[in-house]
Amino acid sequence: MSDAATTTINDVEAYVKGIAEEARKASVELARTSTKVKNRALREAAALVRQCTSDIQKQNRLDLEAGKAKGLSSAMLDRLELTDSRLEGVATMLEEVAALPDPVGEVTDLRVRPNGMRVGRMRVPLGVIGLIYESRPNVTADAAALCLKSGNACLLRGGSEAIHSNTVLAKLLQEAMTDNGLPKAAVSFIETTDRQAVRAMCRLRGLVDVIIPRGGKSLIEAVVEHATIPVLKHYDGNCHVYVDQYADAQMGRDICLNSKIQRPGVCNAAETFLVHKEQSGDFLENLLADLKAKNVEVRGCAKTLELYPDLKAATEEDWSEEYLDLIVALKIVDSFDEALEHIEKYSSRHTDSIVSNDYAATQRFLREVDSSSVMINASTRFSDGGEYGLGAEMGISTDKMHARGPMGIVELTCQKFIVYGDGHIRT
Amino acid sequence: MSDAATTTINDVEAYVKGIAEEARKASVELARTSTKVKNRALREAAALVRQCTSDIQKQNRLDLEAGKAKGLSSAMLDRLELTDSRLEGVATMLEEVAALPDPVGEVTDLRVRPNGMRVGRMRVPLGVIGLIYESRPNVTADAAALCLKSGNACLLRGGSEAIHSNTVLAKLLQEAMTDNGLPKAAVSFIETTDRQAVRAMCRLRGLVDVIIPRGGKSLIEAVVEHATIPVLKHYDGNCHVYVDQYADAQMGRDICLNSKIQRPGVCNAAETFLVHKEQSGDFLENLLADLKAKNVEVRGCAKTLELYPDLKAATEEDWSEEYLDLIVALKIVDSFDEALEHIEKYSSRHTDSIVSNDYAATQRFLREVDSSSVMINASTRFSDGGEYGLGAEMGISTDKMHARGPMGIVELTCQKFIVYGDGHIRT
Repeated sequence: MSDAATTTINDVEAYVKGIAEEARKASVELARTSTKVKNRALREAAALVRQCTSDIQKQNRLDLEAGKAKGLSSAMLDRLELTDSRLEGVATMLEEVAALPDPVGEVTDLRVRPNGMRVGRMRVPLGVIGLIYESRPNVTADAAALCLKSGNACLLRGGSEAIHSNTVLAKLLQEAMTDNGLPKAAVSFIETTDRQAVRAMCRLRGLVDVIIPRGGKSLIEAVVEHATIPVLKHYDGNCHVYVDQYADAQMGRDICLNSKIQRPGVCNAAETFLVHKEQSGDFLENLLADLKAKNVEVRGCAKTLELYPDLKAATEEDWSEEYLDLIVALKIVDSFDEALEHIEKYSSRHTDSIVSNDYAATQRFLREVDSSSVMINASTRFSDGGEYGLGAEMGISTDKMHARGPMGIVELTCQKFIVYGDGHIRT
Repeated sequence: MSDAATTTINDVEAYVKGIAEEARKASVELARTSTKVKNRALREAAALVRQCTSDIQKQNRLDLEAGKAKGLSSAMLDRLELTDSRLEGVATMLEEVAALPDPVGEVTDLRVRPNGMRVGRMRVPLGVIGLIYESRPNVTADAAALCLKSGNACLLRGGSEAIHSNTVLAKLLQEAMTDNGLPKAAVSFIETTDRQAVRAMCRLRGLVDVIIPRGGKSLIEAVVEHATIPVLKHYDGNCHVYVDQYADAQMGRDICLNSKIQRPGVCNAAETFLVHKEQSGDFLENLLADLKAKNVEVRGCAKTLELYPDLKAATEEDWSEEYLDLIVALKIVDSFDEALEHIEKYSSRHTDSIVSNDYAATQRFLREVDSSSVMINASTRFSDGGEYGLGAEMGISTDKMHARGPMGIVELTCQKFIVYGDGHIRT
């Protein structure tokens, strides 16, 4: 393998464009490929992952050693590692994607117009999907599988820390393609770790239909700044649980606790609790005891501190913070409307939940909170493609265009208009 | 009215941002506004347009005089003019939009998950829609009406040629808002003609949810280049009619002619005919006679020129050209597959139509042609929101993300996930 990372900037641009052109050609073929063939390729990829576990782990060890030498944190090294069970997870995912229904070709809304012409919408692949991701190498397989099932070619660009792992996984997926008569470029992989490749990918108008950056804010910001093609963003979450005046107290405690601690390091974990002032007695006391027992640090508003002066005070920054840790901001609100205003001002529009038994409040919350997932009496941790029944997910969009919330394979397609005429002309 | 056009660049940016902030606040209120109030405001706007016809025309004359002094073409001046019948058209459109069903609040796909939690999707407004348009002042009313009905605030920026006409229409629409208790900023209008305003609009992340540029390619290119927010593009069309080996000859002639000449200056007019070689005898002779009788210039491929040496030869550029005029490129193809390849290579992915009575060919054409509208035995001129039954349209998207083809009010909304739980926590 040539080390493209050492080539000049112009070469990187030409290299990326060349790969994208092959992906474009492959996408035309994939859009026409039957469900049967796509599923066969996915199942073969699963078999290859199981067969080649030790080869994959050999490459993975090169990344792990380089990572250790570079001084990556143990959390980063953990994310990099492809253990036996993680590789079995990759194989299972490939089989699960094969088992999903194929969204391509579905026709909806076919209606007869007054002139007898029939107009409907047909679901078709987007074309070429560019994915820019960071450390976890299993994203290579996830993205390739979801794109293939939805009839798209993918153009993958993983993080430099996982270059050996990503490369071996991509080659293996390509083998599953060609063994089934599909173009190798169905899984197009950018081997260079040169950062110019990211910029080049964002500007491939006419070749790439959408870019999905998965990673930290600085990656996403850079993509948004330079992109001349559509971007589907997967920002992280500042999620709220609002415990209403009419909440069941035990339910409120359970949902707050679960939303915060069930897996604090992920985007759908809660970061702020809003508590109605009528719940600032027993409920709040019990909730604080629950949180203390689980070692959660609470940062309270001024009213909370009047009641519990030993707590740490929340600063203005805390209301926007995504801790991804055992820390939570807590605010006592005077009314339902104050809770809505706080969420409108500070929420990252990912997931917000109300705990209440008040019909009008729950219905207003559903309608008026402008987030990708809005919940009644449920933990924010349910905001997930698998939990929603979408199958494997490509990420969670906090954008409003095209896809909002967890994105499954349907979100990797679009609908075109189809017209059945009988010689219709316009007069 | 202050002439913001003379202010400095920094001021224009601050001015645009200030207006966008008001639009953002208005959007929160609009999202919660009932259908009844939105419709009442639309009907009042219609009444005001009828009442104020002479005031509007007075402002319109200022634009027409300035346009004449600047030497605008008669076609441009025609597009600028707000005649009595055009203003009656604006009023009728406002009433028609009021009569459309309100898409906001619709819940679909509400399903029960294995744990008893119910997950569905609720249709909600996008938020703030930025529209950048060129000469026709009635777009001001069209855009405001469609955005209001779909619960969005709009941020409008019209062309400098129509500044007086646009300003008077915007003020009148704002009057209809405030008279009905809606925020004036529901119809936010940028009064400066400074071109920096366009660039500033494209970078209002967190304030504007999507930018829709309507105009020539240079406007769209500039928006795409600078935008850091999503763009819905309304490119023009290089549309094809393919007359298959198994086409009914008369139907083929009718559809070709109608697609080309019914209104040659618009984006859904055909620009290239592809004719199967088996149709290069009587059919082609009759078609060329039809075209000649209607003064359509034909630019033929090499094979066409062998048969008709007097025709002008098509250059490579002709296959990509959008003439918007009485000119058509014509190519004889050896097979259905050659027609598909030509369309894949040259189509602008707007609208393409096949004329054929062959079942397999028509179904392959529908599936495999990757354009926003794909038709069987119908004129490309039907690619239109009104003809498709969507009501008034905001433009035709040649993008694949979010909306493809004619965009009605539903395309100005998105779907969020909603969850009904009973105290569900994740284990």
